[in-house]
This record gives sequence, structure tokens and C-alpha cells, in this order.
Amino acid sequence: MKLYNYFRSSASYRVRIALNLKGLPYDYEVVHLRRGGGEQLAPAYRALNPQGIIPTLEDNGQVLTQSLAIIEYLEERHPEPPLLPRDPAARAKVRSMALAVACEIHPLQNLRILNYLKDVLHHSEEEVNTWSRHWVTSGLTALEQMVQAGQNRGNFCFGTTPSLADLCLVPQFVNARRFGCDLSVCPTLVQIEATCRTLPAFANAAPENQPDAE
Amino acid sequence: MKLYNYFRSSASYRVRIALNLKGLPYDYEVVHLRRGGGEQLAPAYRALNPQGIIPTLEDNGQVLTQSLAIIEYLEERHPEPPLLPRDPAARAKVRSMALAVACEIHPLQNLRILNYLKDVLHHSEEEVNTWSRHWVTSGLTALEQMVQAGQNRGNFCFGTTPSLADLCLVPQFVNARRFGCDLSVCPTLVQIEATCRTLPAFANAAPENQPDAE
Repeated sequence: MKLYNYFRSSASYRVRIALNLKGLPYDYEVVHLRRGGGEQLAPAYRALNPQGIIPTLEDNGQVLTQSLAIIEYLEERHPEPPLLPRDPAARAKVRSMALAVACEIHPLQNLRILNYLKDVLHHSEEEVNTWSRHWVTSGLTALEQMVQAGQNRGNFCFGTTPSLADLCLVPQFVNARRFGCDLSVCPTLVQIEATCRTLPAFANAAPENQPDAE
Repeated sequence: MKLYNYFRSSASYRVRIALNLKGLPYDYEVVHLRRGGGEQLAPAYRALNPQGIIPTLEDNGQVLTQSLAIIEYLEERHPEPPLLPRDPAARAKVRSMALAVACEIHPLQNLRILNYLKDVLHHSEEEVNTWSRHWVTSGLTALEQMVQAGQNRGNFCFGTTPSLADLCLVPQFVNARRFGCDLSVCPTLVQIEATCRTLPAFANAAPENQPDAE
């Protein structure tokens, strides 16, 4: 397997955690988001991934994109340890937490969106940071309630083992800290993130431990 | 089953198509996004859905949120007709097309984001429309290439029957037209959308055919 990714990309970080949890080795192929105007936009990479975003996974001649689709694929091909519970309603709850990050928080504080706010709409660095903090903080506030209302046992977003929801939460926290968000709105999530980061699968996937870390 | 939704919400529209395709009857509960400052933000609704967004599905005492999580739940509980292919790599491709809409296009042209651009960042109606057109057009351009590179046979995004990808595409097209996007960038998608709209499951789920349509 080959993963096209970048140390600082939180969508890439989700997939790295999944690969580590499932014990799947992979080749690390760097796509540098800031070099040469963004390697993800170069024709060679766009031939693999027309969206010009990361990550992309190559496996058995298949080229797969979108982090959550890649993780569901890994879950189907390598079911152990499971990243989703068995019961359909429980699976829906875990997926809804993951999507609360992937659809409601992350897209709004992506590099290309922040660049548009700066370059096209001429907002100051402070206005752009306020924008990011607004969406991340309101999103994490809602996720805290979703987790509290679910089957949280204090260690993970749902149940007693890491799930797809934790794979989205931990990378989002890196960005939340970078933007200076007030994390007192989500004490349960803070505790979950701390637990996750002690696990080797999460620690080894962290941006600072990747070969392209700066 | 009870679906909390709104005729114009494209995430609700996705779930309505899924329910119709699977022949599942449901109660239609209106959550009016513009009345009283937005009924989705009222405490009674937020007790069901802390994110304060629609849709929410109630089924067998379970409260499920996030349209893609709800559709995966319906798929697991009511597998026929399938909305995802059988092969894991094919499933990943369909999911990646759905997520290309749900994570890269739709979140950027949501009502609350457009309101923030207007009310907090003081952009004109034209600047906000340009923003929406930019993300919708670039997103559909990429999706066109993903569909062309996949197993499109001219009728649907993948394969020969409607899938999760088509359930995301058709509602996104309503918004694309509303913002005046140039759809010549995605001729295959235009053809797929036209085919889908002839199917009763899609037509009966369309905004203009809902009880709360204005």
C-alpha cells in the first residue's frame, strides 16, 4: 500500500491512525502542500486524485481518495480491530461523530479556504483566525454533546475502543490548538484526546513523527 | 420512522431519496430553517440534534443525525435495493464521490456559512454568490473527472443503478443552479442528474414536491 500524504494534513493523519491500528504497513509518499504552489495541484498528482487534495491510497492497483472512504475500505478489507461497532444504530452514531468533524468543522478551516479568505476576500490574518476559531469551537461544542449523549465511557468517543470518531477527533485537535480555540467547551473530548495520544497507533501517526515533519 | 427536515435542505433531500428508493414510509416533520431565527437552533430540536442542523431520523427509539450516517444505517438495515456496490474498492469509489460533495462542496455554501460571510464579514450579496459559485463549480469539475474515471455508464455516477453518489449529486445540482454555476464544466453529471430526476424516488423527494414547499 502507498499513502500519498503530508505530515500536517489532518485528513492524512486520520488514515495513518487507521493503518497503524490495523497493523498495515505502507509506503509514505510526500505530497508537499506548500512547495511549488502545492504539489497536490500538479498534473501528475491530479491524474491520481482529480480533487487535488490528500490523502490518496494505492492498494492492489486501486486508487482511492477521501479519507473516510479510505478508512471504510480498510475496515471492510481488514476488519480487525474494528473501527465501527456492530449494531447499525451504533455504527450510525460513530459515523455521525466522524462526519460532524469531516463535514462541519474541517472543510471550513482547510488551507484552500483560508487562502481564499486572505487572497480573494482580502481578510487580515486575525479575521481569518477568528473565522477558523468560530467554526472549530462551535463544532467541537456540538461534538462534546453528541459524545456525552452516546456511549462514552470516558476513554473514547463511543464505547471502550478507538473508533472512526476518535480518528477524526485527534487530528482536529491539532488544528484547534493551532488556532488557539478555547477547549474548555469540550472537557470530555480533551480527556479522550489525551487517552488516544498515549496509544502507539495514534502517537506514531502524529504530524511531528512523520518523515516530512518540519 | 420520522424525518426532521426542510424542503430546501439538500442534506435532507439526500435522505428522502434513500427512503423512497428503499420504499420506506416516514413521517415528515418540518424544521423551518428561516422561521423564528431558525427552528433548527431552538432548544427542543437541539436536544435531539446538538449540532442544530438537519436532517435527524428517529427510528425504533434511536435518534440519528448526519445524512450520510443515516443513509449508511438505512443501507445496513434495509439492504435492497443497494445504494453501494459489493466490492470494497467499488464501495470506496462511490463513497469518495459522495464525500466529494458532502465534505468539499456543500459545507462551503451552507446557509450558516453564507450568513457569516454576510453578517460578520460584511460581504455583499454578489461577493457571497461568487464564493458559492467558486466552490460549487470547482467541486463539480473534480467530481466530473472522478465519475469519468470510474465505472460510469452514462446513467449514474457509478454502475447501472442509483448509488449514494447520485443521492448527493442531485441535491447539489439544485444549489448549483440557484447560484448560477456554469454547468458546462460537468456534462456527464448534467446527463446523470437528468436521468435521476426522471425516477419517481428522486422526483418525489425534490424540494418542490414537499409539503412545506413555498
